[in-house]
Amino acid sequence: MEGVQLSIDAVWIMLCAILVIFMQAGFALLEAGSTRMKNAGHVAGKQMLSFSLVGLVFWAVGYGVAFGDSNGVFGTSGWFLNFPAVEGEIPLEISFLFQMAFAAVAAAIAWGGFAERAKLSVYVIFGILFTAVIYPVVAHWVWGDGGWLEALGKQDFAGSTVVHLQGGIAALVATLLLGPRIGKFTSDGKPNAIPGHNQVYTVLGVAIIWLGWFGFNPGSTLEAGDGFFGYVALTTYLAAAAGALAALATVKGVLGKADVPMMLNGILAGLVAITAACAFVEPWAAVLVGAIAGSLTVFTSLYFEKKGIDDPIYAFSVHGVAGIWGTLSTGFFASPRLVEIAGAGQAGLFYGGGFTQLGVQALGVAVAGLYVAVASFIILWVLDKTIGLRVTEEDEVMGLDLSEHGSYGYPEQMKQEPGTVKG
Amino acid sequence: MEGVQLSIDAVWIMLCAILVIFMQAGFALLEAGSTRMKNAGHVAGKQMLSFSLVGLVFWAVGYGVAFGDSNGVFGTSGWFLNFPAVEGEIPLEISFLFQMAFAAVAAAIAWGGFAERAKLSVYVIFGILFTAVIYPVVAHWVWGDGGWLEALGKQDFAGSTVVHLQGGIAALVATLLLGPRIGKFTSDGKPNAIPGHNQVYTVLGVAIIWLGWFGFNPGSTLEAGDGFFGYVALTTYLAAAAGALAALATVKGVLGKADVPMMLNGILAGLVAITAACAFVEPWAAVLVGAIAGSLTVFTSLYFEKKGIDDPIYAFSVHGVAGIWGTLSTGFFASPRLVEIAGAGQAGLFYGGGFTQLGVQALGVAVAGLYVAVASFIILWVLDKTIGLRVTEEDEVMGLDLSEHGSYGYPEQMKQEPGTVKG
Amino acid sequence: MEGVQLSIDAVWIMLCAILVIFMQAGFALLEAGSTRMKNAGHVAGKQMLSFSLVGLVFWAVGYGVAFGDSNGVFGTSGWFLNFPAVEGEIPLEISFLFQMAFAAVAAAIAWGGFAERAKLSVYVIFGILFTAVIYPVVAHWVWGDGGWLEALGKQDFAGSTVVHLQGGIAALVATLLLGPRIGKFTSDGKPNAIPGHNQVYTVLGVAIIWLGWFGFNPGSTLEAGDGFFGYVALTTYLAAAAGALAALATVKGVLGKADVPMMLNGILAGLVAITAACAFVEPWAAVLVGAIAGSLTVFTSLYFEKKGIDDPIYAFSVHGVAGIWGTLSTGFFASPRLVEIAGAGQAGLFYGGGFTQLGVQALGVAVAGLYVAVASFIILWVLDKTIGLRVTEEDEVMGLDLSEHGSYGYPEQMKQEPGTVKG
Repeated sequence: MEGVQLSIDAVWIMLCAILVIFMQAGFALLEAGSTRMKNAGHVAGKQMLSFSLVGLVFWAVGYGVAFGDSNGVFGTSGWFLNFPAVEGEIPLEISFLFQMAFAAVAAAIAWGGFAERAKLSVYVIFGILFTAVIYPVVAHWVWGDGGWLEALGKQDFAGSTVVHLQGGIAALVATLLLGPRIGKFTSDGKPNAIPGHNQVYTVLGVAIIWLGWFGFNPGSTLEAGDGFFGYVALTTYLAAAAGALAALATVKGVLGKADVPMMLNGILAGLVAITAACAFVEPWAAVLVGAIAGSLTVFTSLYFEKKGIDDPIYAFSVHGVAGIWGTLSTGFFASPRLVEIAGAGQAGLFYGGGFTQLGVQALGVAVAGLYVAVASFIILWVLDKTIGLRVTEEDEVMGLDLSEHGSYGYPEQMKQEPGTVKG
Repeated sequence: MEGVQLSIDAVWIMLCAILVIFMQAGFALLEAGSTRMKNAGHVAGKQMLSFSLVGLVFWAVGYGVAFGDSNGVFGTSGWFLNFPAVEGEIPLEISFLFQMAFAAVAAAIAWGGFAERAKLSVYVIFGILFTAVIYPVVAHWVWGDGGWLEALGKQDFAGSTVVHLQGGIAALVATLLLGPRIGKFTSDGKPNAIPGHNQVYTVLGVAIIWLGWFGFNPGSTLEAGDGFFGYVALTTYLAAAAGALAALATVKGVLGKADVPMMLNGILAGLVAITAACAFVEPWAAVLVGAIAGSLTVFTSLYFEKKGIDDPIYAFSVHGVAGIWGTLSTGFFASPRLVEIAGAGQAGLFYGGGFTQLGVQALGVAVAGLYVAVASFIILWVLDKTIGLRVTEEDEVMGLDLSEHGSYGYPEQMKQEPGTVKG
Repeated sequence: MEGVQLSIDAVWIMLCAILVIFMQAGFALLEAGSTRMKNAGHVAGKQMLSFSLVGLVFWAVGYGVAFGDSNGVFGTSGWFLNFPAVEGEIPLEISFLFQMAFAAVAAAIAWGGFAERAKLSVYVIFGILFTAVIYPVVAHWVWGDGGWLEALGKQDFAGSTVVHLQGGIAALVATLLLGPRIGKFTSDGKPNAIPGHNQVYTVLGVAIIWLGWFGFNPGSTLEAGDGFFGYVALTTYLAAAAGALAALATVKGVLGKADVPMMLNGILAGLVAITAACAFVEPWAAVLVGAIAGSLTVFTSLYFEKKGIDDPIYAFSVHGVAGIWGTLSTGFFASPRLVEIAGAGQAGLFYGGGFTQLGVQALGVAVAGLYVAVASFIILWVLDKTIGLRVTEEDEVMGLDLSEHGSYGYPEQMKQEPGTVKG
């Protein structure tokens, strides 16, 4: 590639990396807003810990596992970014930062399942292992050099499977092993609402995450080129907007109230779902993919809660369910003209492509989901049996700000509620 | 245009679209911070609803009305972005996202006039109609292909008239038809302060909006070219900074206190005013335009309040008044060398251009303002007579978080004030 | 330079300017979160005042002092950006906005030392003078045309000395002259914790500042070129992440608690330190530079507090100490291959460069530090003797929101604590 075009591509991917990196701030706010005041400093602060930890591990190990020379299952070279320089490609460091930001999003989602009851040490150990041996393996299958799912023609443009399904399933495993928060369910199993303490944070968090998605999906073109990223940005936007409206209508219909957090989850679910499909589907289909995702996230949130599962940030409903739906959606809606541009797999069922692509998509979901579930379970099970996953009941009631970090996130406001303070 | 330059232009306009889109987060915070705790989830959340709604409607209808083939008054083609591809232009989707973000800003401003007392359904219906039949008509006149104000040489580089005047006037009509919030005026008509609940949000909101304006104005070059957007960014910055200082000095002089929200409104007013003029005026004039806007916004805010008008976010003082002033300002200050670069209209009064340009600017303000006022009035009057604009007195006292959405934005903090909770 | 490359460079530097400008929002949140509720509107609001003031002064005077024709000590031309146009360079306005954003960061850091007790008028006067006659003089020495430190080969890629050391030392002088906040120390000199009121703000502030740093350092390449900025972004990230982990480990080791604000300071310290070194050191060294900075900031924060110095935002520990360490670090770690790319100075001690570069770095720190310290002291001493630096004891107890601005930042929440309200 010519020098000037390379310069543009480098700027474009750097911009997108920066946007995706900013999603960390979004997750910090989304999660802090969705949880309680006594845990706010902990919840927000751990996001910065996550981003620091994940990036260093991904630099040392994860990027090599994902993008190093393949042994058929995972990469086995490129530790500490030790790759040979390649003529005509944007600098490796930029590609790394872009990919690292994706890994950090997956880890942020996974950590969501631990909210308000896990030990800080568990976060750290699981974060390291998730980034080193879980996330990059599936990334290698789908995006790596010689990945077997890529070879089959799997369509996952920006990671409904790689990023969101992985994060969502790890969160589900965590939330199941940890068990519900104290007070979430009555003794006879009926769910109590534990509303997040600050919807303004949640709105801002979702707004920042949505912003970041304009780097997440459009940047996955990996070049500025002729501006095809604009098309990807359009479908991304449409799906999110449709997700918002569908979730709002659904929750209004089901619960009779225009619940704000559910509408926000609808945005996220729309974004998650379109992430696989953004480069493969027509705008009308993007609207449909997003709307279905937004509606699904409401139903599944309520369903899982009814089944006794306490997923405080709805990590699995938003990222897991919509990740599955989004991955499958190209099997229905992938349009021939876009498949040719994006260059992966083939047209979907509704364009006469038959069940082939849908089968590949389903296979990808099943195998990736299984791998993440088993690997996460093993890690967390061992942690549970050794150091224990969960803080003491006393610490949980007191709040993790005090128990894990020694000071409240809101010292002036928490003083006013002496009942929640220890001693 | 050559391929590589097109690639740069695509990246530049995409970046600017993203910046303007981020202004939605700024409006969510600005408005939430400027209103009360009992409405915080509603106020912030509706911004995400607005952005979802506006974009879908603008995609389906609005963009065609603004930029489709003209019937002399509005565009009549291009529904769902169905335009023929044009060789040598950046992808349509990128242009759409940039323009959609502008429409979303106008809608956000308009919705500001509804704050703390309108029904959610009214927001939705007005938002749809504003985006489909109000905003894009004026956009067509000024920026569309064959728009009659453009043909007259109207100077509105980035939308003091198109975006801000429209939003501000719609907000004014709404605030007049809705009437003041309960408790805003005493029985003998004296205004009570209803301060916003969180100035930190307001600061952050304004900071984000200011950030977004570096896409709003500089991106309106519609190309990266030789970097003229840098000049536009400079005048934009200078006007905002001057607006802050002028508003602070004015409010200190008038009320004797260095009021923070007024200073922030000064920033916004400076930005609104320079939006028309940014490419047409010299830096010294940008400082003047911004300073006058900042000062004006203080005086008009106090004046409207004294006249019994309750505009909770000061939408008309900031966007309407400064929008008018900014549009007129090029009639005074447009410099010949810049008029040649920007390629619209002619030099202003102070450069020997006589009253011609000023007349065109005034005509644009008058006609655009009239159209928006009448159209907004008709829509809102019909809504008032049918479904009603305003929530019940009981709901307003309780707060819209509970009445419209079924849960507080700050559940833990609102619990502490049982007097405000129903039942 | 060819037109198309110029266009890219203009976009890249504009993007970086915008990112650095956004750091203002980060400082507003960081400082508001780190201080008390009664001062929150003031602390956040003054950041917007600072940004407005600094930019106008830097436009009128500061940029000329920094980058105008040298008299050997400072620049003496270019007032109001009155520079001759230069063929083949990106537009002056873009360079100005980038540099102005740096000056605004330095001023933000300096103002940090005034927190919770200084008069608003003192902020204003010091802000003007700092921007006109302190900051740009050192900027001229290091980055200006004919600067004597540049001529000696000083390595300060993006301003560990120019921006952070200057800001940090001015903050230290201010905090010393102002004295500790009421209640910070017991009568026998033991420090009391005055925790910041909102760690979520602090997290978001740091996340935004970190984001901005992806413009701060990588943008200091001053061109997009072949994407070397990606390398700079990588070392910047690594140092910050290492700073976070090192600070967390250190504070856990020393105080026995995983203090969130200290971890966040570790991120900032890592960023400050790598700012000089980002283009000169290998990735492994970036990790080391950041980790040492993160650890140092914990020790020095505790040390200064024990010594009776009340630096509310830890401005000196974070920006001063890490600024010194970062500047010195290239004297140890500058790698020959990178020195050649970056084109300043020579290799460091550990690459066989001997003590030469370390000496130059130390000289720069000493002379720059001395100049800032003396100049800041003179200005603040005169202000102290004339208008007085500090608000009255009554005002300080009441909070600066009321005393300096006439209304609370959190009117609904502060009402609940009548003890803190005057009259």
